[in-house]
Amino acid sequence: MTPSSGSGFGDPSARVGIVGGGQLARMTHQAAIGLGIELIVLAADANDAAAGVSPHARVGAPDDLEALRGLALETEVLTFDHEGVPGEHIEALESEGFTVRPGSSAKRVAQDKLHARGLLGGLGFPVPQFEAIDSAVEARACGERWGWPIILKARSGGYDGRGVLKLEEEQLTPAVAALRGQWIAEQHVEIERELSQLIVRSPRGEHAAYPLSETVQRDGICVETHTPAPVDDALARRCGELAHDIAAAVGATGVVAVELFLTATGEILVNELALRPHNSGHFTIEGCETSQFENHLRAVLDWPLGSTALRAPAAVMRNVIGAESGEAPVRLVEALAVEGAHPHLYGKRTRLGRKLAHVTALGETVEQATDRARHCAALLYQVEAIA
Amino acid sequence: MTPSSGSGFGDPSARVGIVGGGQLARMTHQAAIGLGIELIVLAADANDAAAGVSPHARVGAPDDLEALRGLALETEVLTFDHEGVPGEHIEALESEGFTVRPGSSAKRVAQDKLHARGLLGGLGFPVPQFEAIDSAVEARACGERWGWPIILKARSGGYDGRGVLKLEEEQLTPAVAALRGQWIAEQHVEIERELSQLIVRSPRGEHAAYPLSETVQRDGICVETHTPAPVDDALARRCGELAHDIAAAVGATGVVAVELFLTATGEILVNELALRPHNSGHFTIEGCETSQFENHLRAVLDWPLGSTALRAPAAVMRNVIGAESGEAPVRLVEALAVEGAHPHLYGKRTRLGRKLAHVTALGETVEQATDRARHCAALLYQVEAIA
Repeated sequence: MTPSSGSGFGDPSARVGIVGGGQLARMTHQAAIGLGIELIVLAADANDAAAGVSPHARVGAPDDLEALRGLALETEVLTFDHEGVPGEHIEALESEGFTVRPGSSAKRVAQDKLHARGLLGGLGFPVPQFEAIDSAVEARACGERWGWPIILKARSGGYDGRGVLKLEEEQLTPAVAALRGQWIAEQHVEIERELSQLIVRSPRGEHAAYPLSETVQRDGICVETHTPAPVDDALARRCGELAHDIAAAVGATGVVAVELFLTATGEILVNELALRPHNSGHFTIEGCETSQFENHLRAVLDWPLGSTALRAPAAVMRNVIGAESGEAPVRLVEALAVEGAHPHLYGKRTRLGRKLAHVTALGETVEQATDRARHCAALLYQVEAIA
Repeated sequence: MTPSSGSGFGDPSARVGIVGGGQLARMTHQAAIGLGIELIVLAADANDAAAGVSPHARVGAPDDLEALRGLALETEVLTFDHEGVPGEHIEALESEGFTVRPGSSAKRVAQDKLHARGLLGGLGFPVPQFEAIDSAVEARACGERWGWPIILKARSGGYDGRGVLKLEEEQLTPAVAALRGQWIAEQHVEIERELSQLIVRSPRGEHAAYPLSETVQRDGICVETHTPAPVDDALARRCGELAHDIAAAVGATGVVAVELFLTATGEILVNELALRPHNSGHFTIEGCETSQFENHLRAVLDWPLGSTALRAPAAVMRNVIGAESGEAPVRLVEALAVEGAHPHLYGKRTRLGRKLAHVTALGETVEQATDRARHCAALLYQVEAIA
């Protein structure tokens, strides 16, 4: 198969390669169908979430340059459902003339926290104080300067709470002794709310910002998103502008999720960036005119972006997270009866801390949508309601 | 693989077989992904619209009982994307204990127009006058009784205007001489509007009616649907009740599309029934809280039905229909820039009269949505705007 120009109805309108076969690729496949896009998935495992729903899935490791090149050869553009592709491989593909979006320099911002903090801080974006650390002595110096506790974060590879430690002074020495790899220390800030601002950016320079969401975390894992976030319009506008400026500054293509802290003193700080469809954007499937998955595809193909407007007064997403190993009962039939709630199953086996499904509920208010989402998710799986 | 009870997250929540691999099966696959349903498609051709997007597509003829049985053996329930499965095969599978929804007696209503007219008329539903005919002499007698022109319809197998003739007296003899198969004659009625009332019915007895649509036909092919239909509330309510009563009377399961005539004298007549997702329900993907494809799956699995409420003041669907053979230019990129419009490509090669794609546009009014849908469809393909 050679890449198609999409000139006729029988051919795909485009061929896009996605590295990673998780739920993000799975939901991207759903969006690709309507647009006539052939999405070719490079899944690490034949049982990955996307592999079960796509006829164009193949098994290959994300750090296997040959597999990546094979995918690039068959597609017009390569994109990602995770951060696991080594930067040097992305650079190698670019130097061979393949189109990779986001490109290596942008993607590095999502792959290397030290780089991201340094770049964003250097450009004047508000970030927490940070420092690369190599020893307990260096970490202790940070705590003495900023106050205790401090946050230690793995420079790369962390997700869903893994690779993040909050340490009091007396916990520091044993914790640092156990660390492997490279870490950064970060000032602990008192957080009023955690927010997520999704924005989509295309090579032609179009931007489209989704409505601001509040994210609710438990043990470092996002459990809920509430949209619109309960903040005033001026603050929401500021977050949209910040995300716009960051996406432009890093040269991002596709969806950019900017995770933000609203501090107790009313300050906005940039926490993390993801340069791909993001868990905090799942609400866009039912909640917005164009989902983050469709807009990511449009953006990496440099097609016009779709409207990001909300389609209901409120949208709440709740994750269904594995509580223990082994098979857990899914009460989908009961869950489907909850008004206004839309369950999304990922086809994954349960495992502690693993995201297995999500529910998006719409409502007249965030409170109503939250009740619906929690009720539906609790039926789907024995997750206790959070306060 | 054995049918799954859907008890755990790793397994499909259900396995459903669908006979036919057209755009209806393609869009049903999109809906199945979110619900964790493994939809196994029996496509007549490896290039069918659904085969390109599903990992569970196989090639087999819809009249091949062995292929149908193979599909039934792997799934919990069998359903259809067309009318082409012989009734005796459906009966054979039912007698072997397989679950087929809709079942043979209901499906026959959509497969045999003489049976449908007789059944519905006999139950007191309003249908045009009709008669089975075997010769020009019999057809002429109908015309003399009802007035000219008269309508001749193939008893089975007609669609998209094929199998329907409107004949003046002088056209009758040569036309009837050329007919093959079994035909019925039908009174020609002056039509004010054509309407489509979609309703979903589940074995547990749940019904959910979609908002009433007006359908616009050209050469017997549906080119547009306008929702809500421009009729008063009382009439819309009457159509919903009529569809409810018909679905119950024929024992339908899944989506039922009741095509209706609003006559010049204000009468409502039942034209055709389809017992499957229907072209006149494509607007439900963006236009309603739950699409017809998701609700068809829920219904055939006897799961709770989702809300059929409109999610915008107006939704207009426009079909993109092949005008000539060969490859036609698709200007998808331009089409995507039309505000409020959502193109859906089917991955089919163009052919005269073939449905290649559709566009659903939402708007504040039917007029606004119509403009958007036509503009988008015209960009997608050189279709002239209809008046």
